[in-house]
Amino acid sequence: MTIKVGIIGGTGYTALELLRILHNHPKAQITHLCSRKNVGKPVVEVFPSLIDFVGLNFIATDDKTLFECDVIFFATPHGVAMEAAGDFISKGIKVIDLGADFRLTDKKQYQKWYGLAHTQGELLKNAVYGLPEVYKTQIKNATLVANPGCYPTAITLALKPLLEAKVIDTKHIIADCKSGVSGAGRGANVATLFCEVNESLKPYNINQHRHKPETQQVLADIANAEIDFDFIPHLVPMTRGMLANIYVDLTQNIDPQALFEKHYQFDKFIHILPGGTYPETKSVKGTNNCHISVQKSGKRLIVMAAIDNLVKGAAGQAIQNMNIMFGLEENLGLEQIGLLP
Amino acid sequence: MTIKVGIIGGTGYTALELLRILHNHPKAQITHLCSRKNVGKPVVEVFPSLIDFVGLNFIATDDKTLFECDVIFFATPHGVAMEAAGDFISKGIKVIDLGADFRLTDKKQYQKWYGLAHTQGELLKNAVYGLPEVYKTQIKNATLVANPGCYPTAITLALKPLLEAKVIDTKHIIADCKSGVSGAGRGANVATLFCEVNESLKPYNINQHRHKPETQQVLADIANAEIDFDFIPHLVPMTRGMLANIYVDLTQNIDPQALFEKHYQFDKFIHILPGGTYPETKSVKGTNNCHISVQKSGKRLIVMAAIDNLVKGAAGQAIQNMNIMFGLEENLGLEQIGLLP
Amino acid sequence: MTIKVGIIGGTGYTALELLRILHNHPKAQITHLCSRKNVGKPVVEVFPSLIDFVGLNFIATDDKTLFECDVIFFATPHGVAMEAAGDFISKGIKVIDLGADFRLTDKKQYQKWYGLAHTQGELLKNAVYGLPEVYKTQIKNATLVANPGCYPTAITLALKPLLEAKVIDTKHIIADCKSGVSGAGRGANVATLFCEVNESLKPYNINQHRHKPETQQVLADIANAEIDFDFIPHLVPMTRGMLANIYVDLTQNIDPQALFEKHYQFDKFIHILPGGTYPETKSVKGTNNCHISVQKSGKRLIVMAAIDNLVKGAAGQAIQNMNIMFGLEENLGLEQIGLLP
Amino acid sequence: MTIKVGIIGGTGYTALELLRILHNHPKAQITHLCSRKNVGKPVVEVFPSLIDFVGLNFIATDDKTLFECDVIFFATPHGVAMEAAGDFISKGIKVIDLGADFRLTDKKQYQKWYGLAHTQGELLKNAVYGLPEVYKTQIKNATLVANPGCYPTAITLALKPLLEAKVIDTKHIIADCKSGVSGAGRGANVATLFCEVNESLKPYNINQHRHKPETQQVLADIANAEIDFDFIPHLVPMTRGMLANIYVDLTQNIDPQALFEKHYQFDKFIHILPGGTYPETKSVKGTNNCHISVQKSGKRLIVMAAIDNLVKGAAGQAIQNMNIMFGLEENLGLEQIGLLP
Repeated sequence: MTIKVGIIGGTGYTALELLRILHNHPKAQITHLCSRKNVGKPVVEVFPSLIDFVGLNFIATDDKTLFECDVIFFATPHGVAMEAAGDFISKGIKVIDLGADFRLTDKKQYQKWYGLAHTQGELLKNAVYGLPEVYKTQIKNATLVANPGCYPTAITLALKPLLEAKVIDTKHIIADCKSGVSGAGRGANVATLFCEVNESLKPYNINQHRHKPETQQVLADIANAEIDFDFIPHLVPMTRGMLANIYVDLTQNIDPQALFEKHYQFDKFIHILPGGTYPETKSVKGTNNCHISVQKSGKRLIVMAAIDNLVKGAAGQAIQNMNIMFGLEENLGLEQIGLLP
Repeated sequence: MTIKVGIIGGTGYTALELLRILHNHPKAQITHLCSRKNVGKPVVEVFPSLIDFVGLNFIATDDKTLFECDVIFFATPHGVAMEAAGDFISKGIKVIDLGADFRLTDKKQYQKWYGLAHTQGELLKNAVYGLPEVYKTQIKNATLVANPGCYPTAITLALKPLLEAKVIDTKHIIADCKSGVSGAGRGANVATLFCEVNESLKPYNINQHRHKPETQQVLADIANAEIDFDFIPHLVPMTRGMLANIYVDLTQNIDPQALFEKHYQFDKFIHILPGGTYPETKSVKGTNNCHISVQKSGKRLIVMAAIDNLVKGAAGQAIQNMNIMFGLEENLGLEQIGLLP
Repeated sequence: MTIKVGIIGGTGYTALELLRILHNHPKAQITHLCSRKNVGKPVVEVFPSLIDFVGLNFIATDDKTLFECDVIFFATPHGVAMEAAGDFISKGIKVIDLGADFRLTDKKQYQKWYGLAHTQGELLKNAVYGLPEVYKTQIKNATLVANPGCYPTAITLALKPLLEAKVIDTKHIIADCKSGVSGAGRGANVATLFCEVNESLKPYNINQHRHKPETQQVLADIANAEIDFDFIPHLVPMTRGMLANIYVDLTQNIDPQALFEKHYQFDKFIHILPGGTYPETKSVKGTNNCHISVQKSGKRLIVMAAIDNLVKGAAGQAIQNMNIMFGLEENLGLEQIGLLP
Repeated sequence: MTIKVGIIGGTGYTALELLRILHNHPKAQITHLCSRKNVGKPVVEVFPSLIDFVGLNFIATDDKTLFECDVIFFATPHGVAMEAAGDFISKGIKVIDLGADFRLTDKKQYQKWYGLAHTQGELLKNAVYGLPEVYKTQIKNATLVANPGCYPTAITLALKPLLEAKVIDTKHIIADCKSGVSGAGRGANVATLFCEVNESLKPYNINQHRHKPETQQVLADIANAEIDFDFIPHLVPMTRGMLANIYVDLTQNIDPQALFEKHYQFDKFIHILPGGTYPETKSVKGTNNCHISVQKSGKRLIVMAAIDNLVKGAAGQAIQNMNIMFGLEENLGLEQIGLLP
């Protein structure tokens, strides 16, 4: 049996990445691809790189044939999945939302950060936060998965072993994070023009980034404690890649290398690097892997986590969730060597 | 005496470059800077790099104080200068248009390539094409200068010695040209987003680029003959820089190195590189220089010309024109070492 | 049966690319990987991106276990394969040399361009030039394949339909080519440092590049005629990608779009783009595809061909050759969507 | 009077930057330029961008005419200035060392971090650390100035107001810093090849970087207290630019914006950005400026400082020091608008 996959929002970077990865997936196939602006056009006309998807044309977002799918990925701006997800779920079709509509459990938080009232309280209650290294059991039985943001993924993977072991001061956390430009999406925008971004580095939205409440929620859930952290995102002049540097104060004298290695021993995508070596974003480029290093300095612990923001931070994780939801091996279709150089 | 300079269209890359260069000009000062969207705002608020222009605020495009200026630079999309230039000229204020409104002498050609009827026939007749290495005498007495496009500048400088010497087949010319992304301007546009342009190279608008008729016009004027050339522009993943490779068939057995060196011996910005060395765009970055190499291969001659598209291809050349119009040394304020690396 | 693959020269970009692609090949497996400098070291220690090759350690170049392989890829500087290939071939092991040792059929040419006497005349006679779109039949039965250089691959694919149809002036060809930096390899070299290459574009080695005689040889073989072409390579500030622009004079009035589409209808990796669209290197990044556009301008024809210099220009083509040599489907393991953005 | 400047180590990025800036300096002129490898060669032959230095040839490092200079800049690897500086100083020639030989006051520290015994104890005693915003008075009378490293410059400027005001916990400081690649110099090195660095981000040498003891020394001197800080440098895929993020715990409830603005009100190159805006490295590119932002988060203070590592972090600061040593205006020749985009 092949899983029939539909994608709504088919011309963004996340959708492109879903197309790339699923093309080699042995048990899933993209059968429907929606784009409001390109209805009827061959996919290959819009993306010449997708020359092997010769048969596929874009369809409308409300095309009825979408209900033939087994799973729908929403790769859309916030607000879209909120309104449309229910139609699919009510027909037994699984939904994975790569946007933000079902990440925040508190509707007030959603309204505060996204400027939009949340209209789908029932769906929200049943949505599962799709970070498999934390919520794998729940994802197995989910019909609606809220795929995490890229920053929350990297930060949470870096902190989880420490929060569960209760060995850090949860009120004194710093997350100095750096992202490639693709995280900003494919919309026309002066701020992400080549000439604006190239050859420059900048912090932005310090403690104001929409990924902050989402991260806070999942960290607090893991720690079962109040979390206070500063979130300093940066834009780096590269297309892909994310590095999260976490600075925490240890409350116990632990061996962090051993703790992390043991903690993640069964998680296929999480790799703890040998002591004294550090993650580079290029080493995870194009893969669903997360490379983590830990380094102690007195009572301070430095944790560094690198992911590809479009893969483990978006499309790859969504496919990992799909695999889990359909009872497949978690890493099916996701075992690739990164493109280097 | 200091020349008072006003700039209309103050937030594009060309304007930024005028601000940068004129800041160190000993005889000119920017006194007025217009931006429709930023009226009243300090310049430094929009461009933190311009921290030394602390006193200057953006004014409206129709601010009456603009008439206090000695020269107005239009750094605007086509159509704007066409309508507004006359107001300044009629008051004895010189105008340099960095846009396309006064480059094509034939109004029909303008309409064909820019989709706009040309309403200012009289101004057009008196406008001088501002390529000083060709039209210096006319520029001296001009009140309205049409500053050339970047491609026409590079191509013309590469071909002028050959056309004047009448040693090439003018009906069999190829111009394979490569440009940095800043040539596309600062408008919000998916095609020039970092992630679209980075790590890729592409030809575009072959023989359809708006710089083609302008180039053809000036080449024909120099050659006093019909010109037929293929124009193949490319977008290169770098911010600045332009390289024009010209392929021509020689009709006489000449020594191109000697011809070019002699031809440009008095042109301060044109440098003929030693035989066997080739121009790199970084060697002219941030400068008004043009580096040219020539190499024979049988009856074929290869000419390569590198400029900074924002300097010799736009703002620097405009200031060179201003210097000539005001009877100053041509290179005043333009003698800088390029930023390397 | 799984083909056991050994790689000699295991730490360059070409080897990395062989590792990446073969990791997903259903019928081949890398079992031996040599690196003089890293004997005994886990591969993952040198390349953290290869985290899934956990079991593999580097071995010495003269390790006897190499003779267990079914095929040896040489990803070494010229001179190495010349001396070592015979040992494997004499034991019935197939050899694919990604270097230059067996590309030039004329030993004098080899000596002239590579400064080294060719010591293996017998091997050279039996070597097949591994450009499958030209020599597929010979490759099928070859034991020694000389994998082409990247420039020769792009240029030849762009010219072959025209040469076979005998519709161009073969003495008046221009190849204006642009390459990403990875083509220069992974050796320590000031000229390819980030700060030297970034934000600049330059021509180099005009008509002096070592890929010229190789290209000339294969073009002449296809045309069965003398070939005269100018070869102008450029270095572009991007990691991967190659674009070859070919300018030729037509001797007959043909429909080039139809000619190319028909010519390549059975070649899985060659895609003729629709009229009016042009190849971008990013659309073939990470793939074995070659995208070609043709555009007429009077009697001149412009052909543009884009490949990934490390895939169709090196490792991917080598695997394509391996597939053919072992009687497999040509595109086995090579059907991947390019990494975009 | 014009200051005659000699540069020893004339082919690195720092020397190039000295050449660029001094070319426009009204009171100084480069008269001697040394390069061991290029003795006798015209400078323009090695660096085609320096086309206006047409008359200058490289001389040997021990050329006797160097003693005609008023000041010598050493832009050399550590060890060189240590041996040679004394010759010039003994003849009354001022010396500015852009390397590390005279930065660490403790000879044991020098030996520990640079693996070399310090042989010039007397010189070391009289050397002044050339960070003008801290040691201007001493620099005025110095004959030997140790020009600071780029990281120490950025970190110190970010911390100085806080240390002097004694409002932070000096034992709990984090410096998460990011640098462009030019900081690694112009030596042939695989690690800084374009293809290794491009499209990737990585931390390196955490708490092991040679700039750490130097920073610690100057911070302790300012604070008159023990300093404990973690230093996490990163390599960013851009040529120029440095951003230092400093995380500290406040011991008093202060208004950091007011503190910083007042503290630096007379320092021409230090600009405190308005609240809620953050420094971008491109805004200081090519300039001697340092842009600083401060942001409070509870008891934590985040300070961000951006410089151009080759200007305020090297050559520009050296010229600032020269100006002070010769009684000139501190910013002479250093007032330029950065190159944007």
